[in-house]
Amino acid sequence: MNWGHIDRYAKSLIKEAGHQIRVSFYQQIDVETKADANDLVTNIDREVERFFINRIKRDFPTHRILGEEGFGDEVQSLEGVIWMLDPIDGTMNFVHQKRNFAISLGIYVDGVGMLGYIYDVMGDDFYHAAKGEGAYLNDERLSQLEITPLSDAIIGINASWVAPNRHIDNEKVIELVKACRGTRSYGSAAIELAHVSAGRLDAYVSMRLSPWDIAGGIVIAQEVGAVATNLKGEAPGLLGQEPFIVARPGLHRDLLTNYIKLKQ
Amino acid sequence: MNWGHIDRYAKSLIKEAGHQIRVSFYQQIDVETKADANDLVTNIDREVERFFINRIKRDFPTHRILGEEGFGDEVQSLEGVIWMLDPIDGTMNFVHQKRNFAISLGIYVDGVGMLGYIYDVMGDDFYHAAKGEGAYLNDERLSQLEITPLSDAIIGINASWVAPNRHIDNEKVIELVKACRGTRSYGSAAIELAHVSAGRLDAYVSMRLSPWDIAGGIVIAQEVGAVATNLKGEAPGLLGQEPFIVARPGLHRDLLTNYIKLKQ
Repeated sequence: MNWGHIDRYAKSLIKEAGHQIRVSFYQQIDVETKADANDLVTNIDREVERFFINRIKRDFPTHRILGEEGFGDEVQSLEGVIWMLDPIDGTMNFVHQKRNFAISLGIYVDGVGMLGYIYDVMGDDFYHAAKGEGAYLNDERLSQLEITPLSDAIIGINASWVAPNRHIDNEKVIELVKACRGTRSYGSAAIELAHVSAGRLDAYVSMRLSPWDIAGGIVIAQEVGAVATNLKGEAPGLLGQEPFIVARPGLHRDLLTNYIKLKQ
Repeated sequence: MNWGHIDRYAKSLIKEAGHQIRVSFYQQIDVETKADANDLVTNIDREVERFFINRIKRDFPTHRILGEEGFGDEVQSLEGVIWMLDPIDGTMNFVHQKRNFAISLGIYVDGVGMLGYIYDVMGDDFYHAAKGEGAYLNDERLSQLEITPLSDAIIGINASWVAPNRHIDNEKVIELVKACRGTRSYGSAAIELAHVSAGRLDAYVSMRLSPWDIAGGIVIAQEVGAVATNLKGEAPGLLGQEPFIVARPGLHRDLLTNYIKLKQ
């Protein structure tokens, strides 16, 4: 397996898809009515998915693709090479904001993340990592994350998990909100993983994430020393939806021990 | 009063300050230890404040300045021309993220907002408006906001207000979180006001905002038809801290009537 080649290929594919999305947005300015504009956004979404699947299938016919929109393969085990792809992570932002969404891709071999990519398309921020070779934002290497106490930490967590919900004890989350320095919510798991990797958030927690939401980000996060697990502290399963947490090392344990409690 | 001149002057001042901040960040890469780096960030903050105050005092000696850091004037009434300035709105983002902060400026005459500016420095997004002449993001005119039902709305609200707090009934906020399409929190009132004005958020609510946080954004928001008030539905007082809401027209009434309830 020539990982240097696959890495260059994946980067080029992602950049090309990002360019297509931006061009489509500029063309969309000509569209008259809002209904038509929404259709166009949905079409962009579908086109980007097809673009990825067609290219990967053509150029890596033995690899499998695990993706959101079902154009990929039925993946029931992690054997072999799997491209875990979300062509547009942060769909609500994509539709409502036309920014703050990302292309997210992780390439795994037998369940081990080898390459990870998050491309914030409108911000033109490209996060990428190869296992064992560090993580980068564009051309700049990201620093190893140091330990930060909770009282200094900014936590990425959506208001949904502070309200009563069926996944976690929200009373504990309320304690967390009061104990940390501040909270943020950006509406894209990939972008929030990128923020944790770049040291802009100290942790990110969400209850309903799919493999394609986090696969790329996990590779990047691990390269800077962040800890990414499910809420039992185990490695993410990457075959179905799961609750997910990523954080600086000491903070990860503090959050799981004291604040993020799965309901039985 | 030559408003065209003041508008050009203010824009130029803000752009120059933004440039200084970016240059300071690039220089900071050379700083060795984290403690020194934090000092440097604090110094940038102070320098930007002094830059604004010195220039405005020199060139508009009869105008007053209402600003966060106390280098400005003691402002106890809204008579005359007042520059309401937050040189760096979103201080926590500024320190921790080195992005997602803004320069916020509103120029008011006898309490009426004439000019408004929000400059997302690292994103290089410049929002600006002159009363009665529309609002712009960079060179592009922002559209008038249309009515959006709550079920389609993305609300800017921090997790703090979903947790029990002394300002509003958090049980009602929990209902809001469940009734809306989604929530976001960006950590800068100015940027969230800009998002509402650009149609990327449908509302933004916060309990503790000062005049300089919202003065510029209110001018911009009003030019696109957003409604900005305190939580009693009155025009913001602009002389002290107050709870604040800005939203699309119909949504503003819905939120104040049904979901955002001040504690007595």
